[in-house]
Amino acid sequence: MAIITLTTDFGEKDHFVGAIKGAIYTELEDVKIVDISHAISPFNVSEAAYIIQNAYASFPKGSIHVIGIDSELNAENKHIAVKLDDHYFICANNGIMSMICNEIAPQKIVEINIHDKLDTNFPVLDVFVRVACHIARGGTLEVIGKVITHIKPIKNLIPFVNDDQSQIIGSIIYIDNYGNVITNIRKKFFEQIQKGRSFEISARNYKFKIIYKRYSDIVNFEIPEEQRQDEGRGLVVFNSSNYLEIAIYKSDLATVGSASSLMGLQMRDTVTVNFFK
Amino acid sequence: MAIITLTTDFGEKDHFVGAIKGAIYTELEDVKIVDISHAISPFNVSEAAYIIQNAYASFPKGSIHVIGIDSELNAENKHIAVKLDDHYFICANNGIMSMICNEIAPQKIVEINIHDKLDTNFPVLDVFVRVACHIARGGTLEVIGKVITHIKPIKNLIPFVNDDQSQIIGSIIYIDNYGNVITNIRKKFFEQIQKGRSFEISARNYKFKIIYKRYSDIVNFEIPEEQRQDEGRGLVVFNSSNYLEIAIYKSDLATVGSASSLMGLQMRDTVTVNFFK
Amino acid sequence: MAIITLTTDFGEKDHFVGAIKGAIYTELEDVKIVDISHAISPFNVSEAAYIIQNAYASFPKGSIHVIGIDSELNAENKHIAVKLDDHYFICANNGIMSMICNEIAPQKIVEINIHDKLDTNFPVLDVFVRVACHIARGGTLEVIGKVITHIKPIKNLIPFVNDDQSQIIGSIIYIDNYGNVITNIRKKFFEQIQKGRSFEISARNYKFKIIYKRYSDIVNFEIPEEQRQDEGRGLVVFNSSNYLEIAIYKSDLATVGSASSLMGLQMRDTVTVNFFK
Repeated sequence: MAIITLTTDFGEKDHFVGAIKGAIYTELEDVKIVDISHAISPFNVSEAAYIIQNAYASFPKGSIHVIGIDSELNAENKHIAVKLDDHYFICANNGIMSMICNEIAPQKIVEINIHDKLDTNFPVLDVFVRVACHIARGGTLEVIGKVITHIKPIKNLIPFVNDDQSQIIGSIIYIDNYGNVITNIRKKFFEQIQKGRSFEISARNYKFKIIYKRYSDIVNFEIPEEQRQDEGRGLVVFNSSNYLEIAIYKSDLATVGSASSLMGLQMRDTVTVNFFK
Repeated sequence: MAIITLTTDFGEKDHFVGAIKGAIYTELEDVKIVDISHAISPFNVSEAAYIIQNAYASFPKGSIHVIGIDSELNAENKHIAVKLDDHYFICANNGIMSMICNEIAPQKIVEINIHDKLDTNFPVLDVFVRVACHIARGGTLEVIGKVITHIKPIKNLIPFVNDDQSQIIGSIIYIDNYGNVITNIRKKFFEQIQKGRSFEISARNYKFKIIYKRYSDIVNFEIPEEQRQDEGRGLVVFNSSNYLEIAIYKSDLATVGSASSLMGLQMRDTVTVNFFK
Repeated sequence: MAIITLTTDFGEKDHFVGAIKGAIYTELEDVKIVDISHAISPFNVSEAAYIIQNAYASFPKGSIHVIGIDSELNAENKHIAVKLDDHYFICANNGIMSMICNEIAPQKIVEINIHDKLDTNFPVLDVFVRVACHIARGGTLEVIGKVITHIKPIKNLIPFVNDDQSQIIGSIIYIDNYGNVITNIRKKFFEQIQKGRSFEISARNYKFKIIYKRYSDIVNFEIPEEQRQDEGRGLVVFNSSNYLEIAIYKSDLATVGSASSLMGLQMRDTVTVNFFK
């Protein structure tokens, strides 16, 4: 049975997501529809790119991923369908796919050209759903678009490394539900530059010299529980997606606060790693 | 396979929606349950009416729509099941159905009368789910209620037109996830009054003389991208549901702001259209 | 077909929930995945315990409930799988199960021990999903863990009763989507202590002498609707889960306010019942 996932900035309240699901079920009876996220910040292509990159690979090969972010068709914003890692992605050509494509070469990209039949201001419903159902029925990408070879890039995707490789200058690309801040520095990239050297990570006036494996590695379990003061302490981990993340142990915006709120760290802020000889 | 949709003001946190889904799966193994929205403002019948009207028609004929808004049974708030456009709707008789019924005549309305067996303060779980499963199994409406011919109306549904048809006085009936404000002026109604005349739309001290087809029609793509200043500009469109909508190009409450926040437009505020000879 | 439910504090935005669903569908084609809640306050074990207790019983026997709250494995936070009331629960041994287990004796508890093969900082994806799919395929608990007999308790679960049984001192354990505040005083417990006596319920400086059956029982329907002033009035009910709840009639945080906001009632605040001779 085909799987179609949905990632949008439509929010949880409006009728858009419901209407899309209804349209899919009207075309296909046997299909699984899975919500990845509808809470992307409006028009935020970077957030969408981070979320889809980290969600898609858990799904079975052949899954179809509809991404409805900034998808209004115009002279500069074409619609594309991409086959990559044996998954299908349908979205606007606005940078969303560049984070994934930077890691894994796409198998095929087409620019969708079924719009001459469709005059719409709800393209996810009227265009993306049709393309998704076409693929779910076993249709090929060439039928719904013309092959292209390049997609629009996203800015600031790759951290900067200085000439003598003593410094990585990264930036914050995502803030998660716990207020943890996630940088564009991936574990593999970090280790390639690090080459075993010791280091110091700086974000505003906060400094860290250890990267933990788990959040609770900050806790000394030999101290009795009622005497510990770990909740609310800052730490750095490589998160489950292997990105360098600045976190607060057991963060909660409503109580102890979060890395973002306590350290004043925002999207696009700089995070620097200095390596020592 | 039957489709049951859910539209409620239960929110995303509490156990209510999960419990309802569990109850449906306990009665029916082969059913698709689809969330339309659980983020309706509490007890807000107008919002629910707008959302269900714009979502239901995408679903296959025969779909069953459970609407859990202000559904506690009392002397003035009876439960109804409505067949309309070959869809089924189950809700309280509190105005929710009047927006749809105003466009399309219902095929049948029954006042649900299975409550004598059920003493409950969770009627969506204990009453609506049973009615939905009864319909899903092919049962008729007459078995679970007595036929009635009128439903409770909703106020301020239809905009006012003055005697010489030079003015439409509409109102804001919904504010969407992007903060765009949606009026009760539908495209067909607008064009019937307009008869090709030029016009000016007023909302507070904001005036608009053009209704765009797409949000990005406001952009002049001949100007280089880095010199454009369109993000945050106000515009008017007929939205994908064909309602007159005042929008901000690429609105985001957290950054550029929205039509609602920037222009100070709220639910029930007046939007006027003046036509010129 | 197996049913797997999900209750987490992952929120609606991040990729975590989507990734989990993808992983389940990769292991099992024929399964229903149902979201109970992803909006638990971060690390809030009491909220999760309340929600899972009130949602699970609506599902068919044999359903598998994955609870992803504070689930990082460490010396003090082991993973368990519990069979209770012919349902399966997979979670950390951090108190979540103690609210349910306090009502119904578990049929079996195992401490999960498949971690030696898995080094992970996303245990819900890497451990809980595997255990859930193992159970869905008919596997036994003994294969994935060793039997234990005790689970970690949660604090302040049971209200305090004074020696002469003239007073119950309860506390607020949950605040729902309407801002209604829910205490740890259950109807059956209340009636056992009450023994038919009259009573007064106190929360801060608010007093109540009646427990209604339904929210709208506060309304006098003989007064014409436009003269009534019931919206925004406080009242006490046993809610649909049979917990004592302080509510506001037709509460809405954005308009009339809620019990929590208007009366200043917060999680863990005390609610007292005094009985009279």
